[in-house]
Amino acid sequence: MTAAAAETSHDPRTGLPATAARPTRPEELAATMAGAVAAAAGLARVAPRERAGWLHAVADAVETERHELVRLADWETALGTDRLHGELGRTVGQIRFYADEAAAGYYLRVEHDTGDEQVPSMTRVSVPLGPVAVFGASNFPFAFGVLGHDTASALAAGCPVVVKAHPAHLGVSNHLYGIARDALAAAGAPAGTLGIVHGFETGTALVRHPDLAAVAFTGSQSGGMALWRLANDRPVVIPVFAEMGTVNPVVVTPRGASRIDEVARGLATSFTLGNGQYCTKPGLVLAPAGSGFAARVAAELRRLAPDPVMLTRRIADGVAAGIEALRDAGATVTVRLGGEAPGWSAPAAVLEVPLDRVTAGSRILEEVFGAVVLVAEYDSPEQVTDTLARWPGALAATLVAGSGEDPWAAPWLAVLTGRVGRVVLDGWTTGAPLTRAQQHGGPWPSTTQPTATSIGARALERFVRPVAYQGFRDELLPPVARRSNPWSLPCRVDGAWVEGGAA
Amino acid sequence: MTAAAAETSHDPRTGLPATAARPTRPEELAATMAGAVAAAAGLARVAPRERAGWLHAVADAVETERHELVRLADWETALGTDRLHGELGRTVGQIRFYADEAAAGYYLRVEHDTGDEQVPSMTRVSVPLGPVAVFGASNFPFAFGVLGHDTASALAAGCPVVVKAHPAHLGVSNHLYGIARDALAAAGAPAGTLGIVHGFETGTALVRHPDLAAVAFTGSQSGGMALWRLANDRPVVIPVFAEMGTVNPVVVTPRGASRIDEVARGLATSFTLGNGQYCTKPGLVLAPAGSGFAARVAAELRRLAPDPVMLTRRIADGVAAGIEALRDAGATVTVRLGGEAPGWSAPAAVLEVPLDRVTAGSRILEEVFGAVVLVAEYDSPEQVTDTLARWPGALAATLVAGSGEDPWAAPWLAVLTGRVGRVVLDGWTTGAPLTRAQQHGGPWPSTTQPTATSIGARALERFVRPVAYQGFRDELLPPVARRSNPWSLPCRVDGAWVEGGAA
Repeated sequence: MTAAAAETSHDPRTGLPATAARPTRPEELAATMAGAVAAAAGLARVAPRERAGWLHAVADAVETERHELVRLADWETALGTDRLHGELGRTVGQIRFYADEAAAGYYLRVEHDTGDEQVPSMTRVSVPLGPVAVFGASNFPFAFGVLGHDTASALAAGCPVVVKAHPAHLGVSNHLYGIARDALAAAGAPAGTLGIVHGFETGTALVRHPDLAAVAFTGSQSGGMALWRLANDRPVVIPVFAEMGTVNPVVVTPRGASRIDEVARGLATSFTLGNGQYCTKPGLVLAPAGSGFAARVAAELRRLAPDPVMLTRRIADGVAAGIEALRDAGATVTVRLGGEAPGWSAPAAVLEVPLDRVTAGSRILEEVFGAVVLVAEYDSPEQVTDTLARWPGALAATLVAGSGEDPWAAPWLAVLTGRVGRVVLDGWTTGAPLTRAQQHGGPWPSTTQPTATSIGARALERFVRPVAYQGFRDELLPPVARRSNPWSLPCRVDGAWVEGGAA
Repeated sequence: MTAAAAETSHDPRTGLPATAARPTRPEELAATMAGAVAAAAGLARVAPRERAGWLHAVADAVETERHELVRLADWETALGTDRLHGELGRTVGQIRFYADEAAAGYYLRVEHDTGDEQVPSMTRVSVPLGPVAVFGASNFPFAFGVLGHDTASALAAGCPVVVKAHPAHLGVSNHLYGIARDALAAAGAPAGTLGIVHGFETGTALVRHPDLAAVAFTGSQSGGMALWRLANDRPVVIPVFAEMGTVNPVVVTPRGASRIDEVARGLATSFTLGNGQYCTKPGLVLAPAGSGFAARVAAELRRLAPDPVMLTRRIADGVAAGIEALRDAGATVTVRLGGEAPGWSAPAAVLEVPLDRVTAGSRILEEVFGAVVLVAEYDSPEQVTDTLARWPGALAATLVAGSGEDPWAAPWLAVLTGRVGRVVLDGWTTGAPLTRAQQHGGPWPSTTQPTATSIGARALERFVRPVAYQGFRDELLPPVARRSNPWSLPCRVDGAWVEGGAA
């Protein structure tokens, strides 16, 4: 076995090295997984309320380290301290959200059937899957990082987590891990509740590890699909919850076009947010012919005058290459600016493309991960319905409709419902807000598990599995399944809802 | 393209042909799928209550044809008219159950968040996936047949269904299809709501069809895994809900052994039920050393004196070969009898195996689909805990415990919870009862989707996907998502449960 090279994060503003990390050795991975397995039973046994307490302790500790974390993250991502302070605040809120959702107990989906002389009693509950591997995203060092949505929801659901640190922010990853490890230990969580590993090959070995139960990933199509294939090649296949970049559509109805300037302004802000490094970035706009929409967005972009510094050299190179590929596929550049800053700079751009080039399988419908947006004009609204019906599965869409009656709102909403995980009316898809009802996921290939979400109340449910107990006496069952309901869980009893009392 | 040979079902009691069916031609499959696609929007649009009405009409029609259906099924399966009358009654009940569960609306899991100045309003609902392919089981011509659990739950959830008729019961399949097609049409369901196809190659083409949204399968490991691989090779991967045969453990605690005669009697009845052709058949018993359990079960088997006629020639051949393979893997035959009847006869058998041969990867832990059971004796209860911890994922398990305090009930239940989908106390896993809380599924490889169930209230949820609507006015949304709640759905509003009123 050859020794893998050390990983190094960089300052994107200069391209100079920031933090180095030695790849985790096989025996260290084995020890980390052994720790996770040992912790799993303890995590599964305690009441969700108790795990919630541990997570609130982690949230408190992260808040305390806010300034050092933002400093490290800004160094390694160049996302700016304003954005990063905001993201850190949201991440602390996320940790508390999953803790409280776990404590509320809806995710356990407890159901009791009393039975009768013909049918035995039956109780179904949810049980944690076991150790979960989390592969965080480059673009959210906090919100989808070591303590991001995936980690917080897995821990809340009672699964130990082993994080594969993202090589683009090793410093912030290691610091987050240290904070959480100490806070968990102080709060009384089992050792091994949270682990961290480094290195590409270690990540592969982690997914192959026989004791791993699930994988959560946020990132590129190529990364997510590679992990999915790896998991499917295991002797015991495990679920991979990969949430990946797609081309998110924006559709403007003929009546919605009456607010075209406002829409152009909103779009320009949205697609340049975080330098376009959002999986929810609006990617392609369908606007009425003659609306001059591309020119309006181009004017807004000139006004914003971004000069994007990207997260990694590969991402920066990908933007320039992506614009060229879109041109090869039939798009023309309306405006292209920036890419002049030092470090890992990339251009921002608006392109136009004829509607007949917007076809599945074309490069036009593959993501460019940067501040790049396409505009296609339609002659008739029926063309939009047809185009959307063939759209590859995407995370989210925007529908811009008339403020009163709009004959195209309902038919376009129906077809968008079949193609995406979330539809936003007259707003923007970037910045998926954390609400219980949020759905961050969508049809294949936006995710490998279209029924899953990586944000919102149901994020917890990725990491549990239903089990039924038939004909049991209450005292033999674990607390979660007892009719006496010691954890005060909401449940269904003989088909009717019961909120928290004894069933 | 070569023409595929006609399929023929047989009378297992004689091996003589029963019903022949010409394989569906590619253009017929195309037309069937086009019909399903056309029906999908109509099914998705109507209230679950309306689809429930269609399903009750189907149930009524099946009941009316009871005698002809049982006659055909007995001819093609040799399962006997008593069993088949019972199964038909249960199947009618299943259809009504899924209809009523759909109408109750829990499966839609509607969630409303009101939002505020910082956070937009969000509503999450579930939407039907689209056309579903159903591959029924050989061993349940009604309960997992053309109108079985998979079809009824998919239709109830709003998905059109295309059934691949099982070659072992073509006559009963075609008759069931004709009954349902006419009943659906008379009740007002869209044409194309239910289709049927024949032939192995057509089944493959069906799974590959670009408009197919999901696959449900009940049967062997080889069949289920083949469909899963086929679906994973599609350009757009779709979920395969394959529920497959496993070795279901029975564990008898030292105190449970006080009722050893009763347990032996129950086991003998259970593992010979339907000639052992149940995916929930108890496969391997762990009993205390010195309990003489194998000899007791053997005595009960001699008393029952079954002479099994199996569903197909392949299944019958598989039983004899399976017994030999178990012997090669270290088991010894305690009793082997039957296999003398005319037609597709196979033996029933009890075998003993040393506990150290019960290891994952051994033939000992692969299903023999027939009236065959293994017994292994343990010296110490800790051995059972260790053996269960390494058990391959299975559908169900039986725990036989002492009637009072039993120190091994809790630790064994904990380890069984991690290895199976359902645990039965002091009862038998065969005949998974239809209750809302039923969980018929389990860890890989018992199913390809361990979070899914093919029986019970959550069976519906296999065929829907969550979608969120952000910032919408009520009047633009489909009825399912409106806060005015025209369908009177149970839902969660700002984190609190609301039962059916306006949200």
